[in-house]
Amino acid sequence: METQVILDTLWVALAAMLVFFMNTGFAMVEAGFARAKNCVNILSKNFIVFAVSSLGFLILGWGLMWGDGNPFIGLKGLFFVSGADNSPATGDAYRGVYTAISWAGVPLMAKFFFQLVFCGTAGTIVSGAVAERIKYLAFILFSFIMATFIYPIVGHWIWGGGWLGQLGMFDFAGSTTVHSVGGWAALAGAIALGPRFGKYGNDGKINPIPGHNLTIATLGAFVLWLGWFGFNPGSTMAADPNAIAHILMTTNTGAIAGTLSSTIVSWLLLGKPDLGMTINGCLAGLVAITAGCAFVSVPSALIIGCIGGALVVFSVIGFDRLKIDDPVGAISVHLVNGIFGTIAVGLFAQDGITGVATGNGLFFGGGFTLLGAQLVGIIATGIFTFTASMITWLILKHTIGIRVSLHEEIQGLDIGEHGNSAYPEFLSRKPVFSALQNGNGETIAVATSAKSVFEGGK
Amino acid sequence: METQVILDTLWVALAAMLVFFMNTGFAMVEAGFARAKNCVNILSKNFIVFAVSSLGFLILGWGLMWGDGNPFIGLKGLFFVSGADNSPATGDAYRGVYTAISWAGVPLMAKFFFQLVFCGTAGTIVSGAVAERIKYLAFILFSFIMATFIYPIVGHWIWGGGWLGQLGMFDFAGSTTVHSVGGWAALAGAIALGPRFGKYGNDGKINPIPGHNLTIATLGAFVLWLGWFGFNPGSTMAADPNAIAHILMTTNTGAIAGTLSSTIVSWLLLGKPDLGMTINGCLAGLVAITAGCAFVSVPSALIIGCIGGALVVFSVIGFDRLKIDDPVGAISVHLVNGIFGTIAVGLFAQDGITGVATGNGLFFGGGFTLLGAQLVGIIATGIFTFTASMITWLILKHTIGIRVSLHEEIQGLDIGEHGNSAYPEFLSRKPVFSALQNGNGETIAVATSAKSVFEGGK
Amino acid sequence: METQVILDTLWVALAAMLVFFMNTGFAMVEAGFARAKNCVNILSKNFIVFAVSSLGFLILGWGLMWGDGNPFIGLKGLFFVSGADNSPATGDAYRGVYTAISWAGVPLMAKFFFQLVFCGTAGTIVSGAVAERIKYLAFILFSFIMATFIYPIVGHWIWGGGWLGQLGMFDFAGSTTVHSVGGWAALAGAIALGPRFGKYGNDGKINPIPGHNLTIATLGAFVLWLGWFGFNPGSTMAADPNAIAHILMTTNTGAIAGTLSSTIVSWLLLGKPDLGMTINGCLAGLVAITAGCAFVSVPSALIIGCIGGALVVFSVIGFDRLKIDDPVGAISVHLVNGIFGTIAVGLFAQDGITGVATGNGLFFGGGFTLLGAQLVGIIATGIFTFTASMITWLILKHTIGIRVSLHEEIQGLDIGEHGNSAYPEFLSRKPVFSALQNGNGETIAVATSAKSVFEGGK
Repeated sequence: METQVILDTLWVALAAMLVFFMNTGFAMVEAGFARAKNCVNILSKNFIVFAVSSLGFLILGWGLMWGDGNPFIGLKGLFFVSGADNSPATGDAYRGVYTAISWAGVPLMAKFFFQLVFCGTAGTIVSGAVAERIKYLAFILFSFIMATFIYPIVGHWIWGGGWLGQLGMFDFAGSTTVHSVGGWAALAGAIALGPRFGKYGNDGKINPIPGHNLTIATLGAFVLWLGWFGFNPGSTMAADPNAIAHILMTTNTGAIAGTLSSTIVSWLLLGKPDLGMTINGCLAGLVAITAGCAFVSVPSALIIGCIGGALVVFSVIGFDRLKIDDPVGAISVHLVNGIFGTIAVGLFAQDGITGVATGNGLFFGGGFTLLGAQLVGIIATGIFTFTASMITWLILKHTIGIRVSLHEEIQGLDIGEHGNSAYPEFLSRKPVFSALQNGNGETIAVATSAKSVFEGGK
Repeated sequence: METQVILDTLWVALAAMLVFFMNTGFAMVEAGFARAKNCVNILSKNFIVFAVSSLGFLILGWGLMWGDGNPFIGLKGLFFVSGADNSPATGDAYRGVYTAISWAGVPLMAKFFFQLVFCGTAGTIVSGAVAERIKYLAFILFSFIMATFIYPIVGHWIWGGGWLGQLGMFDFAGSTTVHSVGGWAALAGAIALGPRFGKYGNDGKINPIPGHNLTIATLGAFVLWLGWFGFNPGSTMAADPNAIAHILMTTNTGAIAGTLSSTIVSWLLLGKPDLGMTINGCLAGLVAITAGCAFVSVPSALIIGCIGGALVVFSVIGFDRLKIDDPVGAISVHLVNGIFGTIAVGLFAQDGITGVATGNGLFFGGGFTLLGAQLVGIIATGIFTFTASMITWLILKHTIGIRVSLHEEIQGLDIGEHGNSAYPEFLSRKPVFSALQNGNGETIAVATSAKSVFEGGK
Repeated sequence: METQVILDTLWVALAAMLVFFMNTGFAMVEAGFARAKNCVNILSKNFIVFAVSSLGFLILGWGLMWGDGNPFIGLKGLFFVSGADNSPATGDAYRGVYTAISWAGVPLMAKFFFQLVFCGTAGTIVSGAVAERIKYLAFILFSFIMATFIYPIVGHWIWGGGWLGQLGMFDFAGSTTVHSVGGWAALAGAIALGPRFGKYGNDGKINPIPGHNLTIATLGAFVLWLGWFGFNPGSTMAADPNAIAHILMTTNTGAIAGTLSSTIVSWLLLGKPDLGMTINGCLAGLVAITAGCAFVSVPSALIIGCIGGALVVFSVIGFDRLKIDDPVGAISVHLVNGIFGTIAVGLFAQDGITGVATGNGLFFGGGFTLLGAQLVGIIATGIFTFTASMITWLILKHTIGIRVSLHEEIQGLDIGEHGNSAYPEFLSRKPVFSALQNGNGETIAVATSAKSVFEGGK
């Protein structure tokens, strides 16, 4: 075996493991940002979503995304990664039906696993935005559709040899392909579900619903930050020292800039430095730098991260004003910054950074060509993903239903959906939402009683 | 230094780190599945067990396992890894006393560290099954015996040049060698200790004792899943791209199949999808695919994982009917699926998957030869490990004692064994076991009082 | 690209990621060892400190540490890593202004990132010792000064071509350069701040203030242990199989020896095996072996770890007697064992272990030459770091202030500094400190009320 193949495979395998570990990060961030009474449900969703995504991507998703086909969809080697393929052969030596990824000189199973963990990420983003009110089964089914059809189709357009890639859109590690796809599906879900009971009062008041465990949320954020060192530098899919070192730096710089700017902005805006905003700022910076990590300089990464961190604060506030209830800020982190990061490529890209020629962004003499392609990509992805997701959500809504009963929501999904609770021994206070601002009859009586969630659940 | 030696060493070192990290996973799963009052004890056990195992394996365990000797035991270079050895030389160039592992082209210390983390895994499996009632010192001493004698002897038989390997038994990453050895020792411990107070009522009722923190248990499961990507693909002990990529896929496929099947089975059987079963199903799928990960195809891995996930649900219920109390399901995960995974090699193995010729399993034209060797291996390992473990437990029982007093058990081991508690600030509810079904005089009064565990502990 | 450059870069990048992950470990250990009412503050500090350090080290720190200059300070390529540099060229082929690190054959950005995560570690050590009473802004500013000036200057002396390295001081992975620098700054901070309210009674009594979550603290310790496998073996900055394998072993041996010895010592001394001591013993063993991991044998590592583990127990008790309040034992772990580990090189170093010639320690025929250089390094580092840190703390104290108000301290820093709490849903008991031993008027009334911290905070 050629040494370069070994090196590339080790790197791809290890990077994929880091990206896989991001599932842990998402699970912990989402669990920590939600209430204790819904914790088992959130953990269950985040645990099973990777299994469901793996199955869907194995059965058909990979084929739709990477199979040779037309500009819109893969058509060869569709099912169970069963197409002809002589990987790790590359370039002219490649014989197979997954041509669009034949540039990566690693075995087919390594390609699959690396792409699978990206697909899993898109699915797990949705989980946070629909938390605390979605039916477990509805989430599982949506995730399967997402991994089998929605994500792979957009993936084909951008990375799989499809029309957006041909158009000259650049999205190195997936600000659009992964994060905004997850974000659009999350937005559709949050709209289809409606806000949580008690979140928006009749008088227009927005009630904060604090997460139950910021320790575990912070842990999750660190794990995501770590995982991103697989996500971005790993997207080289090759052991290229200069590219890896550069992307490691732009990725970390995006993260720290987002962390600092969201902290400062929330400090100035809200009077105190909010830990939730600090965490979401870090993730925002990471999402924002994902598209351009291989195309922009370190100073550009600093600017991109700073803007991402500020954006997330205003976006969280903005979605609340629109009464789109996103318990963990997933839409602000992944959709808003996924869009921004993709635009940022059109502004900050510079040829010669890591060897890929994008034709330069607007700020570096490339004019509007690249920026235009980026905008087309953003819009096309948005229209398709939001529409396909909304249709899926609405079909689920009118068949099995997507939202738990009001009684179950107030009691907590853990009892209703799973029959147990995450912390059965600890005494908890009255659920943190104000039922007084709502007028819904007998349900309010449950919600306003002094009993704890778990007491109520018995 | 030859490039291949460098590549192999990097891979072995990084895979060993991932396996080391599994200690974290076990600690968190076990802590989360047990009650808060025993949490410090469980954490202490899981933290010190790797230190104790490291010491025992360093002093003598490595030598007994890997030293040249007879088919039953290593006899050369026994103490402190001190035998002659010219690693990373391999094959005919090798000069030393650890011939059975001379195929791995890495420095001796890399071989030792990789084998050590496997030894540590076997020890940590026991911890869960004996939780919530074992004396700390008894566990420490058992772990030392396990790492120094029991695990290395079985290891010598299967991997170290001994009679089971010679017989044609195949266990790629240790379904038997690691997991069922840990499982047999755990079974012996659970029997020697007897069930926890309150678990089985006099009227035959089985009382569920829920874990205190499913968030941390889920975190642990994710970490174990990640660690298994070192455990199985790392067992190549060589940077072999095709093998690593294939094993990564079979391992993940086993995990997701176990996750899905245990969730579905528990949903159908118990009415709701239980998170504990989902987690144990994932681990069951991983244990089940461990022996065959390099010998079976991805579709076979899917089947093996599915069976493993279902098995664990029935096994957990079955052991409870037998009144063998295993607080975290360790015996069902590691012993039952360790056995099943080893049998699965005899059924599903196919030559040509990653270059090792097993002679094919029953379903792929190999007849009963391989299956027979697997069964001999399972039985021999079971008889030896269970007997040796039980003798060790009984000696400990009749000398220093292995079980804490009933008063200490009810109060929680944290106060009795360690003098503190894991969460001294949080108020907790009445301990979750029913003292009413037991008739033991004044102790019941403590157990049925309305005071919390920590109050009671004061 | 040369294969060795690829191998070295992969190793350096992956090791750096592991060291980055240590931030998670520090955050969890510190959060777990402190009280719930200060948890958001501790998490915030530990999350933002890496961002602040990254910024400071990027702007100027790297240049001061690694730029060519005089024996005391770097003077070239100071700002934004902007100096001439033709990495990965090494030796005579190197052309650039960062000569002292030109032996590492990896791209400049890989060098920077690896050094950055070390700088971040020094900053995060301080966090624990000043916990539960420091103003968030004061900590942020101190961290910035630390990463931009204090750490880089000492780093220049020892690793960056400065006078201590020239003198023949050896500190392989940073017992002094990282850990004791962090420890000295922590000591200065703890003295400048004074002890927490209620820690030391007027009658001389030392009140234990238990941590609120030992599960998360244990998790953190495991993560740190894992991270150290990047910290020490990664400090080769080269994919050198023998060195990596050896350092992996000495590192793990130091950890297990520290774990076992601190457990035994605390068991004998305090009557029960304290989990906090077990954890700090492990970390102490790791800090102690850090300087010598590449220079000492495995048996020497066992001795060094044992001494480290015992030292930390006595040190924790000793600092309490001196009324220097260190909530997590950071000074005992990082300063005391950082000093001891540096001395240990002067005692146990042996030439020929991994190819670096230190001239041998006292116990291996090297006389007092090496030991003398080590002592000079310890003393010089101590005088500079403690003085520079204390001046910084005092300037901050007399400008923005470094300590929160007594009322805020009793109520918890989470409400005062951040406006929220880590666990808003869980009911907690009376804060764990005895206000009765203090005589401070109306504040005592708050502290002795039966209300929980969070109640009080409303």
